[in-house]
Amino acid sequence: MSLVRVHNFSISLDGFGAGEPQSLETPFGHAGQKLHQWMIATSFWDPAGSTGVDLAFASRHEIGFGAEIMGSNKFGPPGWQDDPDWRGWWGEDPPFHTPTYVLTHRPRSPLEMEGGTTFHFLDASPAEALAVAKEAAGELDVRLGGGASTVRDFLAAGLVDQLHLVIVPIVLGRGTRLWDGLEGIEEQYDTEAVSSPSGVTHLSLTRRAAPAAGVPA
Amino acid sequence: MSLVRVHNFSISLDGFGAGEPQSLETPFGHAGQKLHQWMIATSFWDPAGSTGVDLAFASRHEIGFGAEIMGSNKFGPPGWQDDPDWRGWWGEDPPFHTPTYVLTHRPRSPLEMEGGTTFHFLDASPAEALAVAKEAAGELDVRLGGGASTVRDFLAAGLVDQLHLVIVPIVLGRGTRLWDGLEGIEEQYDTEAVSSPSGVTHLSLTRRAAPAAGVPA
Repeated sequence: MSLVRVHNFSISLDGFGAGEPQSLETPFGHAGQKLHQWMIATSFWDPAGSTGVDLAFASRHEIGFGAEIMGSNKFGPPGWQDDPDWRGWWGEDPPFHTPTYVLTHRPRSPLEMEGGTTFHFLDASPAEALAVAKEAAGELDVRLGGGASTVRDFLAAGLVDQLHLVIVPIVLGRGTRLWDGLEGIEEQYDTEAVSSPSGVTHLSLTRRAAPAAGVPA
Repeated sequence: MSLVRVHNFSISLDGFGAGEPQSLETPFGHAGQKLHQWMIATSFWDPAGSTGVDLAFASRHEIGFGAEIMGSNKFGPPGWQDDPDWRGWWGEDPPFHTPTYVLTHRPRSPLEMEGGTTFHFLDASPAEALAVAKEAAGELDVRLGGGASTVRDFLAAGLVDQLHLVIVPIVLGRGTRLWDGLEGIEEQYDTEAVSSPSGVTHLSLTRRAAPAAGVPA
């Protein structure tokens, strides 16, 4: 069964998935690289990097996906919709290698990149976008790529099967919060936490199986 | 040297140290026991409880203290100041066993309890209260007991040497936030995280030593 998975989504101790202001120069705002230093330090990013638990988690980003969905804020800095030449942050060979659906209220024509990535632009609800992405993914899973408000919207809609969060021991103070409106969301998930020598903690939320029909809860 | 230490301070993933509304029946509001279940399950609380990493952390609450400071909200439910007979949540032998300073804008006469605990009531700033508590503690440390707004105030004033937080994998959504106004506070601390099989993550913040005089930073 095709699943919806979030990987390597870093948040601060106070629950921000990005700082502010986000711009071309500072895609994560005042957070800089602080939220992702744990990943940059692994061989997922740098061939000379570390190969322990952080790499193990980071690598799952690559495995078993047939499509990605991302929010508008992940595809480009504020205002990218006004730039007809914007082709994403990632150069001509983006690291998705599948159909990749960008949620935006101002859709444009698809962008076929190298390496198997094609960006499609959808003005759609989470459920509608997911139906399109699942169709494209076939038996494979759909990666939900962020940012924070997109992950939040999909969680609120009950559409996320696996959520890998990375709690980074910093206090950002401002930015985009992941958890707003998600009170009690943990009741839908089994949770495992494992801390890394790098200082971050990997939190894995796995959606609980629905009880079999006729079995009392 | 006498230190200021916080132990066993539990927060949700979204950074709340208590839920709401707080009352005599629900001291942690809608959080119930969710923030402290990890501790209740250890032999720190229940003689038949667990004896692993959660107990090891919990037990440090008992070691080396000569005084405690707590906020008004830890001593009693909202409105306790209007009840002249209120003597705290803990019965006649509270688990502090030292002079214990309760911050309140409506101080009253000291309460001498059994087991070495005497409650003193202070209308004072964090620094003023700490001076009094350190005098009482002598060579021993001062425990900062919470709640969230009291820990936050002492952190903002730069008065906390060791901060043991317990990140509980729940989303409370509302209550009292620990981190407000503390952007970048991690830069003053060395941080260690360790996850427990119980599902919580212990985060230990240890204040960095000031650089020696004459040594460039």
